[in-house]
Amino acid sequence: MNDALAAWSRSRLMVVEAALAGVCPDAEPGLREALLYPIQTGGKRIRPLLCLAAAESVGGDAAAALSPALALELVHTYSLVHDDLPAMDDDDERRGRPTVHIVYGEATAILVGDALLTAAFEQVADSPILVRELARAAGGAGMVGGQYLDICGNVDGIEALKHLHRLKTGALLRAAVRMGGVVGGASQLQLQALARYGEAVGLAFQIADDVLDADEVTEDAGPPSYVRLLGVDGARAEARRLVQEATTAVGELPRPQFLLLLAEFVAARAF
Amino acid sequence: MNDALAAWSRSRLMVVEAALAGVCPDAEPGLREALLYPIQTGGKRIRPLLCLAAAESVGGDAAAALSPALALELVHTYSLVHDDLPAMDDDDERRGRPTVHIVYGEATAILVGDALLTAAFEQVADSPILVRELARAAGGAGMVGGQYLDICGNVDGIEALKHLHRLKTGALLRAAVRMGGVVGGASQLQLQALARYGEAVGLAFQIADDVLDADEVTEDAGPPSYVRLLGVDGARAEARRLVQEATTAVGELPRPQFLLLLAEFVAARAF
Repeated sequence: MNDALAAWSRSRLMVVEAALAGVCPDAEPGLREALLYPIQTGGKRIRPLLCLAAAESVGGDAAAALSPALALELVHTYSLVHDDLPAMDDDDERRGRPTVHIVYGEATAILVGDALLTAAFEQVADSPILVRELARAAGGAGMVGGQYLDICGNVDGIEALKHLHRLKTGALLRAAVRMGGVVGGASQLQLQALARYGEAVGLAFQIADDVLDADEVTEDAGPPSYVRLLGVDGARAEARRLVQEATTAVGELPRPQFLLLLAEFVAARAF
Repeated sequence: MNDALAAWSRSRLMVVEAALAGVCPDAEPGLREALLYPIQTGGKRIRPLLCLAAAESVGGDAAAALSPALALELVHTYSLVHDDLPAMDDDDERRGRPTVHIVYGEATAILVGDALLTAAFEQVADSPILVRELARAAGGAGMVGGQYLDICGNVDGIEALKHLHRLKTGALLRAAVRMGGVVGGASQLQLQALARYGEAVGLAFQIADDVLDADEVTEDAGPPSYVRLLGVDGARAEARRLVQEATTAVGELPRPQFLLLLAEFVAARAF
């Protein structure tokens, strides 16, 4: 990670992490312990960072973007908890630690996800625009819809793959920058620029994931991926093109610096 | 059901059912089919009816209460879909039809619940008060918290049992009347009266359930219930007392008629 981005992220994430540790203060105690576990398992906090950077890019205040940043991370975290369940991806580990259902049982893991999703909406309750953005990005026409396509497993060709990822990961990343823009006071034109940035970064993010997993997809069988469809070099070229697209989209905003660095950072994993 | 209540319910539910059939119009098609299935499995629609009756009780318009009424039913429906999962109550049937995970598989059932919960918040996005009421009632300090206590299974004595049910079923019923009151233009005093009504009706509802299930709890083993703790006669007396409490709470509102009839209806199952 670029030094300027690292310093900025560190300072912003101190506030985000402290706030995340304080969510759902009045949840039933046992449930609260269980829902803090996946929150505190860490991760790169890409969605909160994109949200904060977007607010700052249009001259807004990072403090105003804290609530949507938390809401985005809560939605992301709930989606991982449910995705890891035996009926879904059946993952026992995430980021080197046992998953929620391994530690607390499957029933509690389902409820942890439900509580986190609910808490996300409480975070943004004050703003109808944010509630609407979050609901669209997270719901059946967004993240959950993409997850559904993924489990159905009949993704056929590059356009279907892009559609899946636009929903599964892209919608929430796009919402992250748009929600940051909204609380930062972005104009409609600026919001459109942020949306284009978010869409490009969302696809670059997924392509980088596929390149990282490339060892696993050298065989013909297995789920479709950008690497399988485009080859490693083709996937890298596409990631590079998308970063350029994202950069161009937000280049004219007042302070795009950290959005530009985040786009580079997201795609860098592919190289 | 009382004739006046039946006629009123029929007219109000025509609108509610039509609106429920149109939720999530842009969800992924396969997912949309799956999420309409539990919505269309019916049920008494007690929460929407309480919400509409509460709006009307303070002189408000039933049309204004449609969105929160839908949101409440979506939350209730999602909770049933997740509760029925093998890791939770493991129910294969509900209202005489196979449950969602039996028809569409477990992974889809998890996603259906997630999509319905998300859609509920989209319904009330315009009102910060409603988003907040719904999130509190549905989350880790409300319905999901109660569900957690229920799966933990160490409920000990009447106060712990009341606490569990206040969260698991009571919080959403209480929110139903409060949300109706809010859109109906209730004063703070009227909202407090509606909350007292909702709390009393919530417990009466659960006691009625326990009495209906009384055949199953004649043995000493099994989960705690009002019937086991109070006996059938004691549980019925408590239900009667709670209906009286609910009636007294809202007796002075401008038009309490359907709230009063709904309280009677909810408790009548115990007799």
